[in-house]
Amino acid sequence: MDYYSKEINQLIEQFSRLPGIGAKSAQRLAFYIVSEPKEQVKQFADTLVSAREHVRYCKCCQTLTDREICPICSSKNRDHSTIMVVESTRDLAAYEKTGKYNGVYHVLHGAISPMLGIGPNDIRIKELLVRLESDEVKEVILATNSSLEGEATAMYLSKLIRPAGIKVTRIASGVPVGGDLEYTDEVTLARALEGRTQL
Amino acid sequence: MDYYSKEINQLIEQFSRLPGIGAKSAQRLAFYIVSEPKEQVKQFADTLVSAREHVRYCKCCQTLTDREICPICSSKNRDHSTIMVVESTRDLAAYEKTGKYNGVYHVLHGAISPMLGIGPNDIRIKELLVRLESDEVKEVILATNSSLEGEATAMYLSKLIRPAGIKVTRIASGVPVGGDLEYTDEVTLARALEGRTQL
Repeated sequence: MDYYSKEINQLIEQFSRLPGIGAKSAQRLAFYIVSEPKEQVKQFADTLVSAREHVRYCKCCQTLTDREICPICSSKNRDHSTIMVVESTRDLAAYEKTGKYNGVYHVLHGAISPMLGIGPNDIRIKELLVRLESDEVKEVILATNSSLEGEATAMYLSKLIRPAGIKVTRIASGVPVGGDLEYTDEVTLARALEGRTQL
Repeated sequence: MDYYSKEINQLIEQFSRLPGIGAKSAQRLAFYIVSEPKEQVKQFADTLVSAREHVRYCKCCQTLTDREICPICSSKNRDHSTIMVVESTRDLAAYEKTGKYNGVYHVLHGAISPMLGIGPNDIRIKELLVRLESDEVKEVILATNSSLEGEATAMYLSKLIRPAGIKVTRIASGVPVGGDLEYTDEVTLARALEGRTQL
């Protein structure tokens, strides 16, 4: 690819390293960057470095934040007796957007996956157990994904936490709101039937 | 979105400014960046700034390059009497990949589009005319896109250049190789019929 300049090739290479960015997108992005005002590109570069520099894990819930203790963990308006366990900060954000949850979180940063060689010690379970010891936690809501790994992690955690006398719940699994029964897979339909509630 | 840290929000914002990157992708990219090694992020940032800093337009063909005259224009192995006119450096790269063209290029950086308010003076037509005056050009191949704008630009250029006695050609339009007639649109089919060649 010597028909592009070396600098553009390097930029294309850097972009195509990113997840979900293929060769064509990387090319498009690189050409967009070189056509942008210099100050804007400088600002983008600075934001990249500064974000990587300052973002760290909350000492309490392990979410990605720029403070020692994240805003949710340090808020007095949240119910600290309920902890929702999620796989990633993005899942936390998804629940925050609903505006329906007022407890606190614990971010595992992954799920147990024997296939990928990820065991209980590779995700932030230890940190959760420490919180359960010291805090006055009444309920742990397991909100890991509905995938094989998420389910396995939920199962593992429930077995680990229940003996301590803490209520452990799992978010409901079923047909998504607005979803068509016709297009819903069998496992989800079976799960929806199992979890039916009386009206 | 105060459930992410300020730095992550800024990074998400920066990513979502890029073309083809939606809110979800921007989020995914931002989280990927903060989980990457610091040196790698630094290198990405440096490449961004350096590419924007060093890339400029070739004084001859106007393509994006890091030299005053791009490698193609300064090559003695290329046929400088044939100029292929394309809309962007990416189109130039697409033709270079075929390995079937040995002439030189001229990059317009756009196409005439009255809808978007882009006139002949907004793209690099002046620079092309200057080349036609001074160089010993025998043929101009119009390889703008097959879109409305590309066709209009080709038409405009052909009217402009033909009086100078230079041969003006247009790349063929028709059914793509490997394409199914059944799934080809009517305009393309009609164009393929018009442009039929004797065997």
